[in-house]
Amino acid sequence: MKSDIILLGHGSGGKLSHQLLDDIIIPALSGLAQSEQNDAAILPTPNGRIAFTTDSYVVDPIFFPGGCIGDLAINGTVNDLAMAGAKPVAISVGLILEEGLPVDDLQEILKAMRIAADQAGVAIVTGDTKVVPRGKADKIFINTSGVGVIEHDLTICGSNARVGDQVLINGTVGDHGMAVLASREGLELESDIHSDCAELYSLVEVMLAVGGESIHVLRDPTRGGVATTLKEIALQSEVDLELVETKIPVREDVGSACAILGLDPLFVANEGKLLAIVAEDAADKVLTAMRQHPTGKDAAVIGTVMSTGKGHLTLKTAIGGKRSVEMLAGEQLPRIC
Amino acid sequence: MKSDIILLGHGSGGKLSHQLLDDIIIPALSGLAQSEQNDAAILPTPNGRIAFTTDSYVVDPIFFPGGCIGDLAINGTVNDLAMAGAKPVAISVGLILEEGLPVDDLQEILKAMRIAADQAGVAIVTGDTKVVPRGKADKIFINTSGVGVIEHDLTICGSNARVGDQVLINGTVGDHGMAVLASREGLELESDIHSDCAELYSLVEVMLAVGGESIHVLRDPTRGGVATTLKEIALQSEVDLELVETKIPVREDVGSACAILGLDPLFVANEGKLLAIVAEDAADKVLTAMRQHPTGKDAAVIGTVMSTGKGHLTLKTAIGGKRSVEMLAGEQLPRIC
Repeated sequence: MKSDIILLGHGSGGKLSHQLLDDIIIPALSGLAQSEQNDAAILPTPNGRIAFTTDSYVVDPIFFPGGCIGDLAINGTVNDLAMAGAKPVAISVGLILEEGLPVDDLQEILKAMRIAADQAGVAIVTGDTKVVPRGKADKIFINTSGVGVIEHDLTICGSNARVGDQVLINGTVGDHGMAVLASREGLELESDIHSDCAELYSLVEVMLAVGGESIHVLRDPTRGGVATTLKEIALQSEVDLELVETKIPVREDVGSACAILGLDPLFVANEGKLLAIVAEDAADKVLTAMRQHPTGKDAAVIGTVMSTGKGHLTLKTAIGGKRSVEMLAGEQLPRIC
Repeated sequence: MKSDIILLGHGSGGKLSHQLLDDIIIPALSGLAQSEQNDAAILPTPNGRIAFTTDSYVVDPIFFPGGCIGDLAINGTVNDLAMAGAKPVAISVGLILEEGLPVDDLQEILKAMRIAADQAGVAIVTGDTKVVPRGKADKIFINTSGVGVIEHDLTICGSNARVGDQVLINGTVGDHGMAVLASREGLELESDIHSDCAELYSLVEVMLAVGGESIHVLRDPTRGGVATTLKEIALQSEVDLELVETKIPVREDVGSACAILGLDPLFVANEGKLLAIVAEDAADKVLTAMRQHPTGKDAAVIGTVMSTGKGHLTLKTAIGGKRSVEMLAGEQLPRIC
């Protein structure tokens, strides 16, 4: 790693994050190969597979249009389990509170957590609370870890994309990131941009019922956005992917806000979105099923796995050109989740 | 709850922590009754029980005599699983890094985590890394969550203490808290006080093999110390407990440091210590087995479950008197873990 101190960009989910992970953290802790890195770990037990995942949430501000750090923390971990094709069962909650946090704020956050957990059908079963002095944290940080059960024999992971597969998304991109950014900066965007934060397991359940073994990869494009997530999948699966810009759903107000701020919606974080890499012959029926689900009504096919390769991601642009897409470099939007 | 903002004392593990949990957090998140609150949640699955637990670590300083935040975070979660009688299997690591943290410090912490995990025979299987701007955290916070398997049919929980049971501890009390405090304040205690941070599953394994169903309660007296932990157990089990001051092992230098600082070692945090409530007729053989294990060589019987009751904890003092012991009130030593 080039820097000898931690930079904000190391938390962006992009290139610097991957360097920190690949050069420092993973070699030290687990030695897991990149091809095996997924949103959740799969633990084989004598009697079946369970999925296990963790995420810490440090979003700023803690309340934003469409949600707060509480439902974000529950849905994020529920979704990491869902992306392994696992049914979320139990969640832990680790709170780090800054001295001086209003108890009313804490209660509102906890309430949002409970509602989100109930909606996802998952129980909050264990927890921990720490308090640090004023100025040693920023209001509240939340860690949620989750355990899920895998009730099928499918292999759904980032290294499973195959030539010909279609790339599906369940709706518009960039909503969460722009909602948080607008809220943080006090931008008056004269619009109704709000976070897309939502649980995705119920959608995955429908997709698995219809698509079965045709569902090769599931991943939620959070930090780093759709572009970074697809680049990761392309590298893990050793394939080249092509995205079609005109097919990617973007809300008009989100697109405009991105244009004003010089951001590319492909790199902006999402929270209630998933990317699915699906066998070509099943893509239509999976898409149809997704569109009948509330969190999939704007689902679209946005790209194709073109060939085996070295993980190139290409964007076919609206004006007909093609450009290579790399991972988010540096920090675009820190503390988005 | 009386305060409308979060106070440092809400993180002490004592009376204020319990108020925050009982009045605000648990009603909102899970509604779990106090009698069911343990260090780990037990998840019944069709094919056996698994244990699931979480803890965040915010210790200050991050390096201290005898350990650092890294091994503390692994051992703490390993031990919470062990206290449920579960064999630790998998651990998650959630890092919150402050911008500017030296990468060398991070590497040293990660190395300590891996060594601790290897010693406890547990795999680090999943993780997450966030970065927050300078001044929005304090160097590094770590969440570890853990999954363990329960390979027996015993019920080991805080509500299981019975009249006549003996209270055992595996060694000296107060070492971790005093090591951290001395290190934080730069105290020259002219001594070799160091943290007792260690994994406890291998000791529990020995105890279970010898004691079996005679082991009624296991709990590690971390924040709030031995006194607060035993008070919790007394309340959960609806029994009255008596501790014998002269039987409680305290290192001479720890005792002196506590005396100088006006602290009671019974309320000082431990990290490699466990309290076991054991049926009277098995106490001797369990004690003997503990003493043959490296982390149990100073094990002692320190008290007795006297009667059913309302959770009174009494200390028979060195000079022959008796005094009532309550939970830690307010904050004695913040950020001890």
